[in-house]
Amino acid sequence: MEKERIIEELEKLLKNHDLTALRRMLSDIQPVDLADIFEQVPEETRLVLFRILPKDLAADTFAEMDHDEQEQLLTNFTDQEVKNVLNEMYTDDAVDMLEEMPAGFVKRVLAKATPDTRADINALLKYPEGSAGAVMTTEYVSLKANMTISEALRWIRAHGDDREDVYTCYVTDANRRLNGVLTVREMLLCKRDAYVSELMEDNIISVKTTDDREVAAQQLARYDLNSLPVVDGEGRLVGIITVDDAIDVLQQETTEDFQKIAGTTPSEEPYLKTPAWKMAGHRIVWLLVLMISDMISGGILGSFEDALTALPVLITFIPMLTDTGGNAGSQSSTLVIRGLALHEIRVRDLPRVLWKEFRVAILCGSVLAAFNFVRLSIQYPGQQMVAVTVAVAMFFTVMMAKAIGGVLPIIATKLKMDPALMASPLITTIVDAASLLIYLNVAKALLNI
Amino acid sequence: MEKERIIEELEKLLKNHDLTALRRMLSDIQPVDLADIFEQVPEETRLVLFRILPKDLAADTFAEMDHDEQEQLLTNFTDQEVKNVLNEMYTDDAVDMLEEMPAGFVKRVLAKATPDTRADINALLKYPEGSAGAVMTTEYVSLKANMTISEALRWIRAHGDDREDVYTCYVTDANRRLNGVLTVREMLLCKRDAYVSELMEDNIISVKTTDDREVAAQQLARYDLNSLPVVDGEGRLVGIITVDDAIDVLQQETTEDFQKIAGTTPSEEPYLKTPAWKMAGHRIVWLLVLMISDMISGGILGSFEDALTALPVLITFIPMLTDTGGNAGSQSSTLVIRGLALHEIRVRDLPRVLWKEFRVAILCGSVLAAFNFVRLSIQYPGQQMVAVTVAVAMFFTVMMAKAIGGVLPIIATKLKMDPALMASPLITTIVDAASLLIYLNVAKALLNI
Repeated sequence: MEKERIIEELEKLLKNHDLTALRRMLSDIQPVDLADIFEQVPEETRLVLFRILPKDLAADTFAEMDHDEQEQLLTNFTDQEVKNVLNEMYTDDAVDMLEEMPAGFVKRVLAKATPDTRADINALLKYPEGSAGAVMTTEYVSLKANMTISEALRWIRAHGDDREDVYTCYVTDANRRLNGVLTVREMLLCKRDAYVSELMEDNIISVKTTDDREVAAQQLARYDLNSLPVVDGEGRLVGIITVDDAIDVLQQETTEDFQKIAGTTPSEEPYLKTPAWKMAGHRIVWLLVLMISDMISGGILGSFEDALTALPVLITFIPMLTDTGGNAGSQSSTLVIRGLALHEIRVRDLPRVLWKEFRVAILCGSVLAAFNFVRLSIQYPGQQMVAVTVAVAMFFTVMMAKAIGGVLPIIATKLKMDPALMASPLITTIVDAASLLIYLNVAKALLNI
Repeated sequence: MEKERIIEELEKLLKNHDLTALRRMLSDIQPVDLADIFEQVPEETRLVLFRILPKDLAADTFAEMDHDEQEQLLTNFTDQEVKNVLNEMYTDDAVDMLEEMPAGFVKRVLAKATPDTRADINALLKYPEGSAGAVMTTEYVSLKANMTISEALRWIRAHGDDREDVYTCYVTDANRRLNGVLTVREMLLCKRDAYVSELMEDNIISVKTTDDREVAAQQLARYDLNSLPVVDGEGRLVGIITVDDAIDVLQQETTEDFQKIAGTTPSEEPYLKTPAWKMAGHRIVWLLVLMISDMISGGILGSFEDALTALPVLITFIPMLTDTGGNAGSQSSTLVIRGLALHEIRVRDLPRVLWKEFRVAILCGSVLAAFNFVRLSIQYPGQQMVAVTVAVAMFFTVMMAKAIGGVLPIIATKLKMDPALMASPLITTIVDAASLLIYLNVAKALLNI
C-alpha cells in the first residue's frame, strides 16, 4: 500500500509543478524503491521524474530498474543523458543491462559513452554469459606494495569515489599481477607508517574470468568476503565481484534450480513479466517428453490387461502405489539435488547416500506397508492375499523409489549433467513404470491371475 | 583430493612432532577450510591441532565448525580454553552454537565465560529462533553525532578490533536510540573536521528484534547493505545483522523451501549428517498423508469399475493423464512458490497469475491434446472416439492442473500458511483425483459406457 500512496503523492506534486518538493521527496527514497515506483508510473511520467533526480541517485536508480524500463528510458534520453548514465553506472551494471538488449541498440548506446567507459564495457561484454568475467566490475582499488598505509588511505580518498568496493584493496605489481589483499579494516587498526607489503595477506582467494559465476559467488560466501578478485590466465587482476552481486547470483542460480525441478526450461525473467506464449514454450518440452515416457507405464498396464480385468479391485490401488512411489522418490531426489548444490554431497558420497536411502526406505516402506495391510484386511475381509499383495508391492516400491531418487542426481553430476534435471517430474515417470512392474508381478505371483 | 593431501601432511608433521612447521602450515589455511579438515580427523588429533592454532585463528575456526564437533571440543577443553573461545567468538556465532546444545551443557559452558560475555550471550539467547534478534550480533560500532570524522576514525581504531562490522557505523543518542548511519567509505572520502551529524544518513533501514530473520536478510540484500541495524520496540539499537550471516539465512531458508517442496519436514541438519531414523521421521508424515489422500483416486476408479472393465484399453491411459496433470500442476505451483518467496508475486496478483496460467494452459493443453489425438488415431484406427476422449480429457486436465497449481500457493499465503506446502506432492495428489474424474466422465459421455 505504502508504494501506491507515494505514487499518488508524486503525481499530485507533479500536477502542481512543485518541483522542489518533488525533488526532496524523491531524494529520500532508496534507489531500489525508486526503481520499483518508476516501473509503475506511465512512460512520460517516468522520464519526467527521472530528470528531476540528482545525478548520482538517477544513475543508481537506473541501475536497479528492469531491462524493459531501462531500454525505454535509453530510447528517450538525450545523447548527454545517455552519456551521463553510462559514465555514472558501474561497468558490471551497465554490462548486465546491455547483455539483454539487441546488438544494434547496444552499439548505438555505446557510441554515446566516453571512450574509456566504452572500452571498459566492451571488454566485459566479451566474457561468456554465466562466467565470473561477465559479472565482475573493473572499479576496484589497487594499491602498490611499497605504499605506506597513510599513502594508501590518501589514494583511496582521491580515487575511491567511483570504486564499487573500497573496503577490500588489491595489491598489484607493475604487470598488474595480483600479489596481495588488504582490507580497510586492517588499515584503520594499524600504524599509519606501516607498509602495505607488511600488512597485506598474500594467501589470496581468487577466481579466473572463465570460472562459473556460481562458483565465484559460493567462494565469496564461503570465505565471508566483501569482494572477490578475478584474474586472467596470467594471474593479472582484471576485476572484482562484489558481495551484493554474489547474493544476486546465488538467488538467480537457486531460482534456476527451482525451475528445473519444476520441469521447465530456466529463464531469468520474473514470473509476471514472462509472456504466456514464452512460458508455455518453457514448459511444453518437458510435458511432452514426460508424457511420451508415460506411454511405457500405459504399455505395462496393457500387457497385464487380463489380470486387471480378472480382479478389477487391483486397478483401484494403482494411483496410491504409483503416487507414493513418486513422492518417496521426489523426497530423495530433491534433497540430494539441494545437497549437491550446496556442496554438502559430492559424487564420491554415492555409496553413503545409497546406504542412507536404503535405511530410510526400510523404515518408511515398512510403516506404509503395515498401514495398508491393516486397512485392507479390514476393508476386504475375505481377501487376505490382496492385502498382502498391496503391502508387499508398497514396500518394494518405496525401496526402489528411494534408491532411484537418491542415486540419479549423483550419477547425472558424475556424467557432467545438471543434477536438477533428475527432479520430481522425471523421477516420478521412471518410478511410475517401475512401481507398476513391481505391483503387477507381485499380484500375478501371489494371486495366481 | 586437495583436502586429503593436507590431512596426510598434517598427520606426518604431527607424528614427527614438528610443531613449528605444523603451526606455519595451519596458519595459511582459511578458518572455514580448517573447520572442514578438523571435522575429518580423529577426536584426539582435533584437540591437538586446535591447541597449536594461534588464538584468533582458533576462535574463527571454532566458529565455523559443525555443532557436533564444537560440543566435542568444549567437553574436552580446559576451563581457560572455554573462556578464551567464548570471549573471542562473536556473540552471534556463540548463540548460534549454544542454541543447538542441551540446556544443562549451555549452563556449564556459560559459567566459564566472563560476566560481560555471559550477559551478552544470555540476552541474545532470549530471542525466539528464527527472529532477527536471534541472528544479530552486539559487536557493532556506535558513534555520537557530535564527533568529528577524525574522532570517529580514532574511536574505530581504538575499539574496532572486536567489532564484527566496522564499515557501517551507527549513530546513537544518550538513550541508545538509533539516529543515523555512516559508512567508513563516506568518512574516508570526506574532510576530517566534518561532524558525524552532517554526514550521517538519517533515513535508516532497520528491522525489529521480533521480525522474521528472512525478512531481515531480504532487506539487507535488497538495499545492498554491509550490515543491518536491529532495534527494539523503543527504537533503541540492540544489534546488527552482517551480510555474511544474511547470506547464510537466505541459503537456509531456500533449503527449507526445497525440503517442503519435496514433501519433507524442514530440518537444518545437512543430508549426510542426519541419521536415517530421523530422516525417515521427516518424510513419513507426508508420505502417509498423501497416501491416504490417494485413496480418493482409488475410490473414483472403483466407482467406474464397470466402464473400465468394459473397455480395458482406457486403463492404459491413466498413468499418462494423471502424470501429465501432476507435472503441469507442479510446474505452475513451483514457479509461483518461488515467485512468492522472492516477492515477485504478491497475494493481490492472484487474478494476474490465474489469467497467465489460463493462457499457458490453453497453449500447452492444445499441443498435448493434438499429439494424443494424432497418435491414437494411428494406433487404434477403428476407435476414433477413444482418441477424442483422451485428447479432450488431456486438454481439460492441463487446464485444471495449471489453475490449481497457480492458485493454491497464493491462497495458502493469503491464509497465512506456508505456500511451499502447496508443492508438487500435494498438487499431484489433488490433480490425480481431479484428472481421473475428468477422464472417466468424458469417457462415459463420449463412449456411452
